[in-house]
Amino acid sequence: MHLEENPQGKTEESLDPQDWESMKNLGHRMVEDMVEYLRTVRERPVWIEPPPEVQRQFQAPLPTSPQPPQNVYDDFRTLVLPYPTGNIHPRFWGWVKGTGTPLGMLAEMLAAGVNPNAWGANHIATHVETQVLAWCKEMLGYPLDASGLLVSGCSMANLVCLAVARNAKAGYDIANDGVRPEAARLAFYGSVEMHNSIQKAVELMGLGRSALRKIAVDADYRIDLHALRTRIAQDRAEGFLPACVIGNAGTVNTGAIDDIASLAELCKKEELWFHVDGAFGAFAALAPESKHLVRGMELADSLATDMHKWMYMPYEVGVAFVRNAEAHHASFSVPGAYLTRAERGFSHSPMPFNEYGVQLSRGFRALKVWMSLKEHGVEKYGRMIQQNIDQAAYLASLIDATPELELLAPAPLNIVCFRYVRAGIPEETLNAVNQTILLHLQETGFAVPSSTILNGRFALRVANVNHRTRREDFALLVEEVVRTGNGLLALSS
Amino acid sequence: MHLEENPQGKTEESLDPQDWESMKNLGHRMVEDMVEYLRTVRERPVWIEPPPEVQRQFQAPLPTSPQPPQNVYDDFRTLVLPYPTGNIHPRFWGWVKGTGTPLGMLAEMLAAGVNPNAWGANHIATHVETQVLAWCKEMLGYPLDASGLLVSGCSMANLVCLAVARNAKAGYDIANDGVRPEAARLAFYGSVEMHNSIQKAVELMGLGRSALRKIAVDADYRIDLHALRTRIAQDRAEGFLPACVIGNAGTVNTGAIDDIASLAELCKKEELWFHVDGAFGAFAALAPESKHLVRGMELADSLATDMHKWMYMPYEVGVAFVRNAEAHHASFSVPGAYLTRAERGFSHSPMPFNEYGVQLSRGFRALKVWMSLKEHGVEKYGRMIQQNIDQAAYLASLIDATPELELLAPAPLNIVCFRYVRAGIPEETLNAVNQTILLHLQETGFAVPSSTILNGRFALRVANVNHRTRREDFALLVEEVVRTGNGLLALSS
Repeated sequence: MHLEENPQGKTEESLDPQDWESMKNLGHRMVEDMVEYLRTVRERPVWIEPPPEVQRQFQAPLPTSPQPPQNVYDDFRTLVLPYPTGNIHPRFWGWVKGTGTPLGMLAEMLAAGVNPNAWGANHIATHVETQVLAWCKEMLGYPLDASGLLVSGCSMANLVCLAVARNAKAGYDIANDGVRPEAARLAFYGSVEMHNSIQKAVELMGLGRSALRKIAVDADYRIDLHALRTRIAQDRAEGFLPACVIGNAGTVNTGAIDDIASLAELCKKEELWFHVDGAFGAFAALAPESKHLVRGMELADSLATDMHKWMYMPYEVGVAFVRNAEAHHASFSVPGAYLTRAERGFSHSPMPFNEYGVQLSRGFRALKVWMSLKEHGVEKYGRMIQQNIDQAAYLASLIDATPELELLAPAPLNIVCFRYVRAGIPEETLNAVNQTILLHLQETGFAVPSSTILNGRFALRVANVNHRTRREDFALLVEEVVRTGNGLLALSS
Repeated sequence: MHLEENPQGKTEESLDPQDWESMKNLGHRMVEDMVEYLRTVRERPVWIEPPPEVQRQFQAPLPTSPQPPQNVYDDFRTLVLPYPTGNIHPRFWGWVKGTGTPLGMLAEMLAAGVNPNAWGANHIATHVETQVLAWCKEMLGYPLDASGLLVSGCSMANLVCLAVARNAKAGYDIANDGVRPEAARLAFYGSVEMHNSIQKAVELMGLGRSALRKIAVDADYRIDLHALRTRIAQDRAEGFLPACVIGNAGTVNTGAIDDIASLAELCKKEELWFHVDGAFGAFAALAPESKHLVRGMELADSLATDMHKWMYMPYEVGVAFVRNAEAHHASFSVPGAYLTRAERGFSHSPMPFNEYGVQLSRGFRALKVWMSLKEHGVEKYGRMIQQNIDQAAYLASLIDATPELELLAPAPLNIVCFRYVRAGIPEETLNAVNQTILLHLQETGFAVPSSTILNGRFALRVANVNHRTRREDFALLVEEVVRTGNGLLALSS
C-alpha cells in the first residue's frame, strides 16, 4: 500500500483564492463602495422596483464554471445594490425595520471571517455573547441571573419563551408526553393587537390557535384588563388551565404599550407565566423621557426583543430572556453523544447556548452587538431612541395641525397611523385615495411608509426606528401626502 | 404652535460617523487584516484557550460613553481574533463545522450594508433568494416546484419540515385545534443515530419525545428497515397513527447514510411523510463518485440541509425544502393587517418567505450563497466534496495500516471514528487514554477532532467538511495520535 500516493492522481485544491492580493484589492473596492453607498444614501430614492430585465437575470441557470470574484462583485453592483429594501434610507418607515450602521456592517465581515460556531464551547464567541447578554439585561433592567440567548429575531425569541412557558405551566412532562388536552387544556392570552408571531408559535407548539385568547383592547389599543380577568375566570370555570399572558411593549400596528405593571401583578396573583413581547418597544427603557412607558417589564417571566430594530443593528439579531434559567434549559437541552461536554479542552463549555434554543449551529451575531455598544455607548442609544419618539410626536403634531390629515390612533411611542381626509368624502373613497397615496410615495421613491387597517380605515403607517431620519423628513412627508391627496381628489372630481 | 422649533432645543444626531473617511480607512484596515488572517491560518495553532485575563475582560461593565471605532476594532484584534473556534483551520475536524471562504466573508459585509429584510416584498433580496433556492434544488435533484426557505441552519430546517409533516398528516386542523391525542396519536420514526434536533423539534411541536420512535441500526449504523417495518405495523395495531419517517443522509456520529431509496419506497407504500435530514450529507449529491450514496433523496416529501457545512459558506445558512408547497405555506402563514400584500408597489410580494417559516424579519443569507456559487461554480463544489470524501477514505486507510489505531465504525462518507489501541489494555483505560489524546491534540493547538461514544468506546471523531484540509494533515494527525498514545502508555506503565 502506497499511502503517500494519491491513487486517482488528483491534485488537491481548496476554495481559497489563487491570488490573495487580488482578493484583498477586491475587499478594498467593496469597502470603498459600501461606505460611500451608506454616506450618500439620502441622495438616492428610498426604493426602486427591480425592472423586468433585472428580474429576468435571476432566472439564470446554476453556474457550473468558476468566474473571477471581481466579476461576481460586478454582478452584485449592477443587479443587487441598486434595488434594496430601502430600510437604510432616512425616509423608510415601513413595518418595523432597522437601519443598520457602518461599523455594524464591518462587524459582520469580521464575524464571517472568524466564522465561529457559537454553540457554546470554550472559545471567544461564547464570552462575547455572554457579555452582550449581560449588557442587554442591564439595559432592560432585567434580572442578571436570567438566562438569555441571541436568536434570529423576535419571532424566534417569542417561540423560545412561549415554549418554556408551555412546559413550565403544563403540570406534567409535556416534553415527553406531548400536549394532552385531557390533562391540561392550556390557555394563553394576549390582546387582539399582539404580533402574529405569537399565533405562529402557539400553532407550532401544538396548542392550536384556539388556545390563544385574543382579548379586546381599549381606545388606546392597550389590552382591556377587565376583559382579560373575565376571560381567565371564565376559562377556569370551564376547566381550562390559564397558563400565560403575553403583554405588548409596543404593538406593531400603533406602538401601543399594554399596562405592563398591572399585567405583571395580575399574572403573579393568578399564577400565570408573564411574557413580554418587546420586539422594538422594550428598548424604550433606554429613552430618558419614555422609560416609564415600559415599567414592569423587568417583572416578566420571559422577555423577547430585537436588536435589529430599535438598536439599529444590522440583521439578524433578536434576544430571548427567561427569568427561570433552569426552566429555560430544561426545555431545549437534548443530549447527544457527540456533544458531550468535557472538563478541559475545547469542549469545556462555559455556556452551552445550543441547550437554550432551537439552533445547534449558531453564527456570531454577538460581535456586531458588542462592537456597536462599545462604539456608541448606551447613553447615545438612549438619546437616539428618545429622538425617534420625539420625532414621532412631532409628526403627530404636524398631522394635528394639518386640516387634510387625520391621526387614526394615538401615537404613544414611535408609530404614527394617519390618513389624508376631506369632509364629505365617503370612507370607501378615502381608503382608495390613501392606498394610492401610499403607492405614490413608494413608487416615486420618495418615502416608504407601510399601511394597516384601523377600525376599517386604511391607515398610512409610519414606524420610526430610523437613526437617519430628521424632523425635516417628516415635514416633507406631510407636504407630499397632502399634495398627492389634493391632486387625486381634484383629478377624480 | 411653532412646529419648526425643536421644543427641547436638542440637536438631531445619528449613528453615522462624523468622519466618513476614517470609517473607510478602518474598513480598509479590517480587509487587510482579515484577508491576511485567512491566508496565514495554517501557520497558527488551531485553537488557543482564551486565558483567564482575557476572559476577565468580558466581565467589563456596559459601555456608557462612545469610543472611536478604531479602538473598538483594537479590542476585537486583541480580545477576539486570537481565540476563535478554529473551524477555519485546515486541521479542524470537530463536530461538523464548515470553513467559510474569503469571498463569503466579504459577501456578509455587503449583505449587512444593503441590510434588507428578506421577508419577501418587492426588492432584490427576494429575487436573489428565489434564485438560490432554485439552484439548490437543481444541485440536490429536488423537484423545481417544491417550496424552499433559507433558514438559520438544519436544526431549524428540520423543525420547519417536520411541522409541515405533522400538520399534513394529522387528519384534522391541528394548527387550530392543537395536538389531540384522542383523535390521532401521531408517531414519527428515525434511527437511534438521528440528530438531536429531530427530538428537539418533536418536543417543541407538542408531540412529545414519546412520539418519536428510535429504531435500531445495523452494523453500518444505518436504520434497520425490518425493525422499522415491524414497529410501524405494531403501532398501527395499537391505534397509533404512523405519520413520518426521518431518513439520515449522513448521521452525525459516523456519516452513515440510511437506505434512502428503500425508505422512500416504504413511505410511499405506508402513506407516510418522508423527511430526509441531510444536514451535511445531502450535498454528497454533487460528488461525482459518491452521489449514488444519497440516491432517492429527491423522492422525499421534505428535505433539510445546511450550506454552512459542506458547501463551505460562512454561518448561518440552512435550507428547508417541501415537495408540497401548499402544505408548507398552510403551516406557517398567519395573517396580519400590517402585512397585507398589495397589487403594486413595495408590498407586491413575489414570494412571501415569512409565510414559510418561523421568522418574519429575515437577513440576507442568500447573498453569500449567490456570490459563492457564481465564484466557484457547482463543478468545483462537487470536486471539493469528493476530495473530502477521498481524504476521509485516505485517513481510514492510514488507520487500517497502523497497528496502534483502530477504526470504530465504517467511514462511508466524510466522518472517521477511530481510537488508539494496544493489546491487553482494558477498555476503561483505552477510553481514558483516548480522551487524553483528544485533549492533548486540542490543547496543543495541533488539531481539533471531537469525540463520540460508539458501543461504549470513546472514539476520536474526524468530520471532514474542510476545504483547506490536505492529505498531509491526516498523515500528521495519525503520527501525532500514535506518538501521544505511546507516550501516555509508557508514562503510565
